[in-house]
Amino acid sequence: MRIVLDAMGTDNAPGVDVEGAVRAARAFGQEIILVGRESDIRAELARHDTAGLPLSVVHAGQVIEMREHPSQAVRAKPDSSMVVGMRLLREGKANAFVSAGNSGGVLAAALASAGRVGRIPGVKRPALSTVFPTLQGTSLLLDIGANTDCKPEWLVQFALMGSIYAQRVLGIARPRVGLLANGEEETKGNASVQAAHEALRRMTLNFVGNVEAKDLLQGAADVVVSDGFVGNVAIKTAEGVASMLFTLLRSEIKARPLSALGGMLAKPSFRAVAKRLDYREYGGAPLLGVNGVVIIAHGRSDALAIENAVKVAIGAVEKDLVETIRQDMADTVTVLEGPSRMLSGAAAGISDDDGAPST
Amino acid sequence: MRIVLDAMGTDNAPGVDVEGAVRAARAFGQEIILVGRESDIRAELARHDTAGLPLSVVHAGQVIEMREHPSQAVRAKPDSSMVVGMRLLREGKANAFVSAGNSGGVLAAALASAGRVGRIPGVKRPALSTVFPTLQGTSLLLDIGANTDCKPEWLVQFALMGSIYAQRVLGIARPRVGLLANGEEETKGNASVQAAHEALRRMTLNFVGNVEAKDLLQGAADVVVSDGFVGNVAIKTAEGVASMLFTLLRSEIKARPLSALGGMLAKPSFRAVAKRLDYREYGGAPLLGVNGVVIIAHGRSDALAIENAVKVAIGAVEKDLVETIRQDMADTVTVLEGPSRMLSGAAAGISDDDGAPST
Repeated sequence: MRIVLDAMGTDNAPGVDVEGAVRAARAFGQEIILVGRESDIRAELARHDTAGLPLSVVHAGQVIEMREHPSQAVRAKPDSSMVVGMRLLREGKANAFVSAGNSGGVLAAALASAGRVGRIPGVKRPALSTVFPTLQGTSLLLDIGANTDCKPEWLVQFALMGSIYAQRVLGIARPRVGLLANGEEETKGNASVQAAHEALRRMTLNFVGNVEAKDLLQGAADVVVSDGFVGNVAIKTAEGVASMLFTLLRSEIKARPLSALGGMLAKPSFRAVAKRLDYREYGGAPLLGVNGVVIIAHGRSDALAIENAVKVAIGAVEKDLVETIRQDMADTVTVLEGPSRMLSGAAAGISDDDGAPST
Repeated sequence: MRIVLDAMGTDNAPGVDVEGAVRAARAFGQEIILVGRESDIRAELARHDTAGLPLSVVHAGQVIEMREHPSQAVRAKPDSSMVVGMRLLREGKANAFVSAGNSGGVLAAALASAGRVGRIPGVKRPALSTVFPTLQGTSLLLDIGANTDCKPEWLVQFALMGSIYAQRVLGIARPRVGLLANGEEETKGNASVQAAHEALRRMTLNFVGNVEAKDLLQGAADVVVSDGFVGNVAIKTAEGVASMLFTLLRSEIKARPLSALGGMLAKPSFRAVAKRLDYREYGGAPLLGVNGVVIIAHGRSDALAIENAVKVAIGAVEKDLVETIRQDMADTVTVLEGPSRMLSGAAAGISDDDGAPST
């Protein structure tokens, strides 16, 4: 198995990315192809003991930055690490692509670049997902930003793909699938969510209905489905609140001598909580629906996070994620064709599309 | 001035609501009319020293519960405290209505009950708002659940009304108004948010553009505008994360003897943070756009929260909130008529409406 790693992805690229690749090559024994500025990558590799490790380098002279407009960037930079890396995946020279870069850029590279792998047949829109910690373990949330103004059948497909990923790759026997909504009742949500709810109830998925945002972190579902706008707001609010709380606690604890002592004594507990919430432990999450294993890691990833993202990619390849989705999509196309017509009626006013990405 | 208080509103009604009314009557000297089951209210009043306090009781035999469907409930219960209380407002027997009950019910009572006050002329949809704590102080978020699938002009009106409230009642000289979106760039958000962005840029509001969810709690804007579905997800995610973090910290601190000691020493700091995040301090938030001062408090309110909600109502009456919105709406109708046509084009596919509430 060969995993392509975008060496220019993280905020501290390529140092962190290369170190993560070295760790992953050592830990998992699979070949890692580092894509990016070759001289920079070689310089970083020289800082590690890489003797005997299955590491190779493919040069790509351009870099897509976090702040760039995704589809414009992939068009303007055909020699970027993202486009070159994706091409290796398309040409079958690698089994998976991992990047901690601009997630919209990865999506655009997968769908609209010179190296595009395209969509799995039958998939209307690929979805960005994320794994987030809950009181019970972790859950998968999708979409978190690839698609706004989602049609009901896109949401239904997100549910299917998320369920397949949770079952095959995360090893959850019968994943509970929920729809993010502003209330548990099936009358809640916007028009699109309500229509998707209706369709999901008639399918064989383990659909647990609507999940309120306050129950997200209680682990109310293993897979939580939402519009990319709403999913993005949920995940970014969660990050913002966690960061605010730690900031407030730190300043209030420092402000009182006894509390400061208490804070020092309780430090291992704070660390345990921070570790529990640490995205680095989870590594990466899939871009579901594209015709290849594509794993996106957090831009602030460190070497451990990159190593874990590679691990996620290896798991997805071993469990034949793409082929499983392809088969399930084929099986459910007939199921969806019916609801799809019904849904278009139910969510009247949501205009038709050509399957092009909204990014 | 007379304030009607729904005595059956909180989760611990009428005890907490009546105690809050007694505190408010004592603190502010304005008359409080308690509406609800008279015998229950009198029994609660008897537990306090109310001699000389401007408190009166109006009987209403029915109660709208938290779990009831709002518009069905107000139709089925014309003698509920919400409907009877709202009628006192409509008939000019009171200057404001305060309730900690089912917020959808309050909205339905304001718009579609026998006691309805209706909308301020020109207002397309009233919005539920909430005051939330930020690192810089507090911000107002609206809509948080009254309207899903919002048209761009509704969002523009939410921005206007929120700005007026922040300026007049919260005393912020030139409130910064932002649109909640999945990115700062004006190309972010769904079709409706993008069209509203375009319109808001051309208005005289202090519009600061899109606000990402992660910056909400940094205090990136004084007034944050969103679709009621998205706003609900943001606020409920925030509540869920805060609750999860405190749960995790408590269990991790208890699990280690030294940490447990540290946790005891640091308790005042934890309390300070909890107080900072406590909705009870903020009391209540307005239902903006209805033709009367209507303040909604949290269902879990205690007596302090109810007292503060009454204080908010008094401030809104003193600052002539409704009349100010009425005038500004009249002034901006011409401004909106233009964008409104343009907007309908920009957000093609969002069907027209008759101004009826979505609840």
